[in-house]
Amino acid sequence: MHSLTLLRERIDRAFAGSAFRHEPSRLYEPIAYTLEFGGKRLRPVLVLLSCDLFGGNIEDAVYPAMGIEIFHNFTLLHDDIMDNAPLRRGFETVHKKWNANTAILSGDTMFVIAYEHVARTDPSFLPQVLRLFNDTARKVCEGQQYDMEFETNPDISVADYLMMIRLKTAVLIACGLKLGAILANAGQPDADRIYDLGIELGMAFQLRDDYLDAFGDAGKFGKEIGGDIATNKKTFLYLKAFEKATGDTLVRLTNYFFDREISPEEKTAGILKIYRELGIDELTRQEIVRHHGNALQMVDSFHFEPAGKETLVSLMNDMLVREK
Amino acid sequence: MHSLTLLRERIDRAFAGSAFRHEPSRLYEPIAYTLEFGGKRLRPVLVLLSCDLFGGNIEDAVYPAMGIEIFHNFTLLHDDIMDNAPLRRGFETVHKKWNANTAILSGDTMFVIAYEHVARTDPSFLPQVLRLFNDTARKVCEGQQYDMEFETNPDISVADYLMMIRLKTAVLIACGLKLGAILANAGQPDADRIYDLGIELGMAFQLRDDYLDAFGDAGKFGKEIGGDIATNKKTFLYLKAFEKATGDTLVRLTNYFFDREISPEEKTAGILKIYRELGIDELTRQEIVRHHGNALQMVDSFHFEPAGKETLVSLMNDMLVREK
Repeated sequence: MHSLTLLRERIDRAFAGSAFRHEPSRLYEPIAYTLEFGGKRLRPVLVLLSCDLFGGNIEDAVYPAMGIEIFHNFTLLHDDIMDNAPLRRGFETVHKKWNANTAILSGDTMFVIAYEHVARTDPSFLPQVLRLFNDTARKVCEGQQYDMEFETNPDISVADYLMMIRLKTAVLIACGLKLGAILANAGQPDADRIYDLGIELGMAFQLRDDYLDAFGDAGKFGKEIGGDIATNKKTFLYLKAFEKATGDTLVRLTNYFFDREISPEEKTAGILKIYRELGIDELTRQEIVRHHGNALQMVDSFHFEPAGKETLVSLMNDMLVREK
Repeated sequence: MHSLTLLRERIDRAFAGSAFRHEPSRLYEPIAYTLEFGGKRLRPVLVLLSCDLFGGNIEDAVYPAMGIEIFHNFTLLHDDIMDNAPLRRGFETVHKKWNANTAILSGDTMFVIAYEHVARTDPSFLPQVLRLFNDTARKVCEGQQYDMEFETNPDISVADYLMMIRLKTAVLIACGLKLGAILANAGQPDADRIYDLGIELGMAFQLRDDYLDAFGDAGKFGKEIGGDIATNKKTFLYLKAFEKATGDTLVRLTNYFFDREISPEEKTAGILKIYRELGIDELTRQEIVRHHGNALQMVDSFHFEPAGKETLVSLMNDMLVREK
């Protein structure tokens, strides 16, 4: 069983050793720019870890794991155009640094590169791998569509939101874990169960992101606090607050979100205060713990060796418990 | 050997029988809109025809053939955003009818659907099919990048242009033919040779499109004449004209293209007159005939049955000789 440090190093080495720059340079430069800044490489590490847990050779999973990460970065690139986001991981987004057309076409090319990597696998697994990846990619697109539609729809429920983040975020985490299982020849039942574990993990992961956006420590979280509040994003917190607020609290909540005369600082402070009054912070933590607990319970149902279980649980803790 | 009519009907039937509408409807509606208007379905017919020529069962090629057509339509959808095109096949483009974000995301989803169709093939062919499709998709993206860059680059040569249309247009025609060969288990040498034939056919096809844009019969061509002239598009005709023009002719050509005081009608008429003076119409026809001739010569090198050869030659004539 490999350590998380080793798995992370293996993925970093794979990306460091890849040449993403080709001709025409203006097409490939934004791709290299996107993939070199990297981020946490969480998804490909999950692929290697799962492959390792099920007794596979992680070297067989390196390219498909990279494919998952390249796909993830492709979706960020296109999402950033759609959301008109200026920054990603503290750097200018591609559509800002270059332009929207470049971001569209370099994104499309990244999507192809993702497929090229995913397809570099034992041919006997290829049909199953491709089915999983296609299914996941389609769901992620559906999730992004719901996310955009929810912005202008006043009738979104907490259940709608959970359905959306399942598609937009959780399925790719689940796909990574299942992909590792397939490449380790784990068999359909185990592959399906680790997928389900990934869904729970992914739900908790996104809810954690929502939570930290409101209640995180700006220095540790690495993002500005209150971004979701500033943009009236219909997160779990927002929707739960409107679900629970009544009377004067509902009036105040509505005012803070929709009165444009209120300064951004006053808005964030006012809404955080109401969230705390309504116990939204505690409720969100409970929801994260619930999904985390479901995932932990599932870990126990696999016949992993103890060191493997520990590594998986430790990665889940990294994703869900630590401040950053 | 099936007739062209039967192959076209088979493809039309496959698209008519496909449900492209799912939830969320605003994601899938533009996809159905794009795929139902259809166009000539040239590329999937080439896949079936090639499969048939090499003795395969066309039913094995229907889904991959649809995949090529869906991919083609995906590229049009994203190209139309990048070119800010208002119309496609006489209908509003997706980014005009809906908006750019919808066109980006519905396009991405179509790309996934294209892969889903391409992957519906005998698993023993899948690695080869996927390698071909990935390679083609990447080249088409590169071609589109060159096409966009050429717009603002004053130093484009005829050779640059031919390189660009090879990537943007010819490789997908070639991919269609090679895909049919692979699915008929034709063997690598034949698959490679029909690909080369497809490149020649594709080059002639794009040059023909350029030619008709200037010298076609508006009623038969189905597009407005002079669209390329109006937008100063650096086509084969434009680049050849600047290559050949000297003295007073060069001054007139430059004026017609770049003097904004000249009315669109006067511009088109003036440039067409200079094209004729310089023999650009004849030169372009010769270039089309040269590529067409290369392709015809290649047809003879295959051991197709006579009826098959005739069908292929007839489709090539449809693409290159008839007015529409």
